[in-house]
Amino acid sequence: MELVLVGIGTGNPEHLTLQAIRALNRADLVLIPRKGADKADLADLRRTICAEVLANPATLVEFDMPVRDPANPDYLSRVGDWHDAIAACWQAAIAAHPGAQVVALLVWGDPALYDSSLRIAARLPDLRVTVIPGIMSPQVLTAAHGIALNTVGAPFLVTTGRQLRDHGWPDGAETLVVMLDGDCAFQTLPPAGVTIWWGAYVGMPQQILDHGPLADAGPRIIAARAAARAAHGWIMDIYLLRRSPGG
Amino acid sequence: MELVLVGIGTGNPEHLTLQAIRALNRADLVLIPRKGADKADLADLRRTICAEVLANPATLVEFDMPVRDPANPDYLSRVGDWHDAIAACWQAAIAAHPGAQVVALLVWGDPALYDSSLRIAARLPDLRVTVIPGIMSPQVLTAAHGIALNTVGAPFLVTTGRQLRDHGWPDGAETLVVMLDGDCAFQTLPPAGVTIWWGAYVGMPQQILDHGPLADAGPRIIAARAAARAAHGWIMDIYLLRRSPGG
Repeated sequence: MELVLVGIGTGNPEHLTLQAIRALNRADLVLIPRKGADKADLADLRRTICAEVLANPATLVEFDMPVRDPANPDYLSRVGDWHDAIAACWQAAIAAHPGAQVVALLVWGDPALYDSSLRIAARLPDLRVTVIPGIMSPQVLTAAHGIALNTVGAPFLVTTGRQLRDHGWPDGAETLVVMLDGDCAFQTLPPAGVTIWWGAYVGMPQQILDHGPLADAGPRIIAARAAARAAHGWIMDIYLLRRSPGG
Repeated sequence: MELVLVGIGTGNPEHLTLQAIRALNRADLVLIPRKGADKADLADLRRTICAEVLANPATLVEFDMPVRDPANPDYLSRVGDWHDAIAACWQAAIAAHPGAQVVALLVWGDPALYDSSLRIAARLPDLRVTVIPGIMSPQVLTAAHGIALNTVGAPFLVTTGRQLRDHGWPDGAETLVVMLDGDCAFQTLPPAGVTIWWGAYVGMPQQILDHGPLADAGPRIIAARAAARAAHGWIMDIYLLRRSPGG
């Protein structure tokens, strides 16, 4: 059996590539995870995409995503247990449709970037995995702001809010792309000489953008983020930080 | 006037997004750079894409790309002069078609990643710039190998062959994505504990992949790269390096 992990972009159905559309149309079975009422619009988006692009409707199977066990204090073991639980859900859904040869899973963004699908798929036996890349949030953020990821010939680091909070600005890059940050870790940095380009819900109709010197834009972003989270019930955001060399 | 920078992916016309197709169909004028006989297949690809996706053919304008001045020893100034020269080419092509309201430029990969188009566009007056993200080579590389860019919760650095050669393995990341490397800079690293995932022409029919411990795969890749470059007249490749934490 083949499992196709299809990157679908960040919420704009037009982020889909022709390759993704073709892959979805090869599938007999499409798995759609439900992540609770807070993120109901994300499952809705997947249903909308299927309705719009599937020429021969495949069987859609929805399943409730397991949740991480907050009682487990060890981060990696907590994540590992969670991936085991998700793998069991996939396996149950696939076993309930024994005729399926090609199973597709719609992955937010790109399956290669801070996504668990490849690691979960590795837990299932006898599965050939195909990956279709999708537009991911760092690209949508920079496109929306009209900026590049890198300065000329220079590197950039893609990292998480947790890493930034725990370790500060890392050596080796004057540009950071920060993802998975629920606590505005940028506020732990000395703001002098740092510029931030921030976006929430990038690519979606409710997209919000802000940018400027971190000292000025940081407090605005903290307030805007809290308000948007309250209004929508959930938020996904991302930002790019750049500082002057040696700054 | 609006200039739309359209990311087209890495050579597979199916990397195009629905958003890119829509943007191209809004254009009155499409600029197609020619980069010399060596890379004729890249201009051919752009022509193919236009022929396949443009419902109402826009005017296609080809222009010869200026070359960098090898006599200028300063890297940043050499690049700056080159961008000035390209901006002049764009301006001449646009001026020759005074009726055009929307001008599109097809950008290999994504305009945000090691691409000059945004910096060149900033040199032209009275231009509104729109960016359409495109699938980029790090995504196509990892999809082809079925691997993720990051390990769980960990950062990764995107950098260049020149940086790796001049500065060695940077602090702050156990995963490196290396681009723009004409000299196999990985051979300057101590190979112990390092794994490489390499790809050339990723996404194109002539795609070549290899991976393994750097000590074993490195020499194979150097030989395969030289042979492929000789066979095709040009090469574009990319690789991901990962080492064990503390390695």
